[in-house]
Amino acid sequence: MNVTVIGASGYAGAELIRILTNHKKCNMVHLVAKDSGNRTLGQIYPALAYAAGLKDQIVEDVGDLFCDQVFQEGKEGFIDDADLVFLALPHGASVPFVRQILAKGKKAIDLGADFRFRDVATYEQWYVKHEYPELCRDTVYGMVELNRERIKGQQFIANPGCYVTGATLALYPLIKEGLLDLQSIIIDSCSGVSGAGRGAKEVSLFAECNDNMKAYGVTSHRHTPEIEQNFSEVAGEDVTINFTPHLVPMDRGILTTAYATLNGKGRACDLEAVFQRYYGNEFFVRLLETGKMPETKWTQGTNFVYLGFTVDQRTNRVIVCTALDNLVKGAAGQAVQNMNLICGFDEREGLTMLPVYP
Amino acid sequence: MNVTVIGASGYAGAELIRILTNHKKCNMVHLVAKDSGNRTLGQIYPALAYAAGLKDQIVEDVGDLFCDQVFQEGKEGFIDDADLVFLALPHGASVPFVRQILAKGKKAIDLGADFRFRDVATYEQWYVKHEYPELCRDTVYGMVELNRERIKGQQFIANPGCYVTGATLALYPLIKEGLLDLQSIIIDSCSGVSGAGRGAKEVSLFAECNDNMKAYGVTSHRHTPEIEQNFSEVAGEDVTINFTPHLVPMDRGILTTAYATLNGKGRACDLEAVFQRYYGNEFFVRLLETGKMPETKWTQGTNFVYLGFTVDQRTNRVIVCTALDNLVKGAAGQAVQNMNLICGFDEREGLTMLPVYP
Amino acid sequence: MNVTVIGASGYAGAELIRILTNHKKCNMVHLVAKDSGNRTLGQIYPALAYAAGLKDQIVEDVGDLFCDQVFQEGKEGFIDDADLVFLALPHGASVPFVRQILAKGKKAIDLGADFRFRDVATYEQWYVKHEYPELCRDTVYGMVELNRERIKGQQFIANPGCYVTGATLALYPLIKEGLLDLQSIIIDSCSGVSGAGRGAKEVSLFAECNDNMKAYGVTSHRHTPEIEQNFSEVAGEDVTINFTPHLVPMDRGILTTAYATLNGKGRACDLEAVFQRYYGNEFFVRLLETGKMPETKWTQGTNFVYLGFTVDQRTNRVIVCTALDNLVKGAAGQAVQNMNLICGFDEREGLTMLPVYP
Amino acid sequence: MNVTVIGASGYAGAELIRILTNHKKCNMVHLVAKDSGNRTLGQIYPALAYAAGLKDQIVEDVGDLFCDQVFQEGKEGFIDDADLVFLALPHGASVPFVRQILAKGKKAIDLGADFRFRDVATYEQWYVKHEYPELCRDTVYGMVELNRERIKGQQFIANPGCYVTGATLALYPLIKEGLLDLQSIIIDSCSGVSGAGRGAKEVSLFAECNDNMKAYGVTSHRHTPEIEQNFSEVAGEDVTINFTPHLVPMDRGILTTAYATLNGKGRACDLEAVFQRYYGNEFFVRLLETGKMPETKWTQGTNFVYLGFTVDQRTNRVIVCTALDNLVKGAAGQAVQNMNLICGFDEREGLTMLPVYP
Repeated sequence: MNVTVIGASGYAGAELIRILTNHKKCNMVHLVAKDSGNRTLGQIYPALAYAAGLKDQIVEDVGDLFCDQVFQEGKEGFIDDADLVFLALPHGASVPFVRQILAKGKKAIDLGADFRFRDVATYEQWYVKHEYPELCRDTVYGMVELNRERIKGQQFIANPGCYVTGATLALYPLIKEGLLDLQSIIIDSCSGVSGAGRGAKEVSLFAECNDNMKAYGVTSHRHTPEIEQNFSEVAGEDVTINFTPHLVPMDRGILTTAYATLNGKGRACDLEAVFQRYYGNEFFVRLLETGKMPETKWTQGTNFVYLGFTVDQRTNRVIVCTALDNLVKGAAGQAVQNMNLICGFDEREGLTMLPVYP
Repeated sequence: MNVTVIGASGYAGAELIRILTNHKKCNMVHLVAKDSGNRTLGQIYPALAYAAGLKDQIVEDVGDLFCDQVFQEGKEGFIDDADLVFLALPHGASVPFVRQILAKGKKAIDLGADFRFRDVATYEQWYVKHEYPELCRDTVYGMVELNRERIKGQQFIANPGCYVTGATLALYPLIKEGLLDLQSIIIDSCSGVSGAGRGAKEVSLFAECNDNMKAYGVTSHRHTPEIEQNFSEVAGEDVTINFTPHLVPMDRGILTTAYATLNGKGRACDLEAVFQRYYGNEFFVRLLETGKMPETKWTQGTNFVYLGFTVDQRTNRVIVCTALDNLVKGAAGQAVQNMNLICGFDEREGLTMLPVYP
Repeated sequence: MNVTVIGASGYAGAELIRILTNHKKCNMVHLVAKDSGNRTLGQIYPALAYAAGLKDQIVEDVGDLFCDQVFQEGKEGFIDDADLVFLALPHGASVPFVRQILAKGKKAIDLGADFRFRDVATYEQWYVKHEYPELCRDTVYGMVELNRERIKGQQFIANPGCYVTGATLALYPLIKEGLLDLQSIIIDSCSGVSGAGRGAKEVSLFAECNDNMKAYGVTSHRHTPEIEQNFSEVAGEDVTINFTPHLVPMDRGILTTAYATLNGKGRACDLEAVFQRYYGNEFFVRLLETGKMPETKWTQGTNFVYLGFTVDQRTNRVIVCTALDNLVKGAAGQAVQNMNLICGFDEREGLTMLPVYP
Repeated sequence: MNVTVIGASGYAGAELIRILTNHKKCNMVHLVAKDSGNRTLGQIYPALAYAAGLKDQIVEDVGDLFCDQVFQEGKEGFIDDADLVFLALPHGASVPFVRQILAKGKKAIDLGADFRFRDVATYEQWYVKHEYPELCRDTVYGMVELNRERIKGQQFIANPGCYVTGATLALYPLIKEGLLDLQSIIIDSCSGVSGAGRGAKEVSLFAECNDNMKAYGVTSHRHTPEIEQNFSEVAGEDVTINFTPHLVPMDRGILTTAYATLNGKGRACDLEAVFQRYYGNEFFVRLLETGKMPETKWTQGTNFVYLGFTVDQRTNRVIVCTALDNLVKGAAGQAVQNMNLICGFDEREGLTMLPVYP
């Protein structure tokens, strides 16, 4: 199958290339990026390019992604030549591409936020005005472990946010089973710096981030409503949470520590069984024994999520920790998992990389 | 004034030496450590020793700190020569020294946990059996901002735990003012690796910690009851919390993110005034404007605590972040602050170092 | 083919497991380590074990590797069941195992230093007394790019040292072509901390290595005579060099900067052609355009070596930089490359992993 | 004495502020920077600003530093109010300021490269055309240990480059004593990322630099001719060297490994005496025992240089390692040392900070 990657110069784009290179069913026909200057992949990601035999592959420049010029000029080969297109773009930027891709009958997976919200008003409240609201309602949200059957066979998938994946997988089985006080949920997460992208910003400099950490976007981070959408859908009622992201000096990885009060409808000892029931057969979610907690480095370069939990009998709270690689299960890996599902491939194809440790 | 540092080979001990070297009222007469092999400070901490002119200073070996042999052998000069002794030892190890120091009429500040709990049963539940329980009840707990007047003039002070300092300063004013739902408190903290000490352990290796993070001691960390003791004392009733520490790849620094639900007795807009009232004149606690959040690197090498907070109107929770250097305000710096108070020195003496940034 | 890994609890052993798990021709029948306590791989390397489906695989304890007890007790299944054994042990420790393995007609690849030297006296001068000197002379040294044809079909291979691989590949083509002043060679290398192994030592602690670097083993590092052996063999005369290793705060990677004076027998502009002739068809050695220099992160988790060089017309020196992953091309990857050669497999089998970047 | 810092928003500027805040003879009257937007120091360097009591201090914007507009508009108060001005600007930017400062009879110390070269042609060959060549010849070069007596009482000093300081101090005593083969000198250096400044560049991002290292500017780095100027002046003849800088994932620190062949005019055992003679009374240069090598972290936040060396009897080469903090002894600290000398203050004033370790 022919695939195109739009946004190939960013970290998620690079990770898509890494995974797709070893995917048995895919042939990358075009790499595309905003302001790439038509440089080669060898110039943009030498490591990846040399190792993957893509040193001289052009990363096609599509200029200002927000305008329709690219289509007016007839430079649509990167869509026409593909059966499926991955979009790894900042929010807002995918819309014009998605219109064209779907109109041409191609499949697409959008790693950005634009089509993750069924309720356009929520998107517009936390992001910006939506330019393609009518597509939102019916777009299937690609959190595989939550939504697998609905994903299969779709033309278009909205790939979840990185923090959202760790937070949702941490608590949704307990919410689904009605075991939690829904007013009590707090999600405290820490991310490596690659989550901030490859853009040259002072706050992302080595000398600013190294040996340093901070909370940011407290009460205002845009992954908040996406986590709430997932929890609300599972709960069958509106759930409001606190979500606090932190920046930590590591390249990759998100550690989520989720807190919730048990509502007394289940015993603490039932929780392991619940998690086992939901995740026991999930290849990419690995349960730890009760009380053992995961480390982000275990997931480095892989599509795995590790989950550990403890119940505090003194406060009646459950604390669940998940670890994942924000660029893989939190972005490109989950996108390929979605591709595998909509295309009828083995769900694990291309995704069985082992972690690089240490 | 003559001071001795027991535990001079650990990181907190080294930090005491760094601070005391530039302290105008102190003269370090003895450096002492367990299993130091009577090596020089130049061999143990070359950087510190060369710069401080202490290259050939012997770090006296007191062998197995748990036995009384040192006293039987009459090697008590390190106590006799001092007016004040700092103890930076693992829990349990201070007891025999404290007995002797106090019996000899010397002042002491214990950086360990042994005398932090007024209720010996709590200590014994979370730590081990206590060998000197009768001293616990009346020992003054050296969290300066909480307890300044009681500290002045004391002979013996129990210096607070590193996490405890960040957690307590984050919330105690709001608790004191009766603004919080006391059942709702969650303390989520992240520490640099120096907090694990200089002991050679696999889990503290560079290749294990670098590019990695994890939660540890979830529901069981020994700083939990100490935070609870502080909050309970301030609240005038028993407070039970959740405390989750994490290990983060940085040398120094603790970032604490504290969550609590507002109980409706005060408006969100009052909180800034409360913090201002409690900390506006505290030299070592720096308030940030509402919504701004601190970074651990700001505190590197200093005795400052930075505090920022936000109220989430949607959930009615306040989120307070504090940042401090675990080896300074979280250990040696606060210990010197306590010394300054009990000895009648300027509270800031020796503690006005500016941060090394970046 | 059945393989056993002895030394499975170290970083090189873990890397062997990572590579062999995805190797199409290999079946790992035993994992063995000194003092493993018969723990599972899930306890020793959870990340690797979960992802590879080896969570409950026992890492068999062979006790004190320097004694022959293991054989006396008849616990030789880990050899008998294997067609080939990898040894990833400290120097000196392989000898009793190698004796038995070869006597039983099995193949072996030793990642340690014991059989790298054809001249036992050199080994004994830099290491310790050799317990199996008669095997040294004829053991083939497994630097593939130097020695490929001799390696094929061997029973036993001595795998090169990590620094040695980067240094040898940097200069051997120029030495072979007679272009260098052989008295002028200086090898300056920097390694990530995983090179120091997983042993719990104070000098390898995060807080000691982070934000720090130093030279070590200056004029005395044991890889010096191994580099000299390679250069001497290629030159046809004795070559003496300076080799200075440094420790750098990164998990993996060796960057080697090699300096040598051109002897006037070739023009500067010929060098690119020389490197092209030697490495143009080497899959695992990637030449950069003249003047471009490699980065260690490009090699993270891969078996690739990157090489860049520049000639300084002012001093008539060539400066060659190589980058590699010390645990892959510098250890486990090169060992598997050797296995592929002696067993007649495709040389690249199991070794085409792409780099994890960033 | 009143001082102004131009370039206060960069890392060297911040370090000047850190040092000057605790300097007993100085009063900072103006902080100035290009494109500062007249923000406060609290906005630019919160850590420093809060701790130093400079939260609301304006960092005055002088716009495009290359034009003379600032003078035309009469905004010269930042010069007029000062007795001495520090310039911490990119090369080329200091010239118009220096003209005015000197014309007004004020003292100045330029941390940039513009006035480091006595031979303008050398500057113009490696940098750009010089706009104030007539000042170059007589400007005194502020490498204190080399030039102390000439520095005293000057009006204007050119502060040395960071790499240059480590390289020059490593070898100049041996060159001065005529012990080295002057054709044989190789300087291999590694720097932390703060050396690249606070500019937002992709190559300086955390995710690009972390867990990574590389050589850069090989044979072309602009500190090469400055090292050569120093060595040539000391040798009394032209010295040409190789200098290779590397970027290493740490905030601060330069480790220099210098190689040179002994020319037989002195015995290896004389070297310690030579270094002792030159540096035994230098407060900021600390000699290690023969064979011991320094670590960059020892110098963190301090003005110290550590020097260790070894002679390789096999190759007749001396290997000298120096470690320093690139922002202190490599920039701001040495600048203050120069200020102390030209103003007749105690040379150590403001510079006795102890290292933050770990």
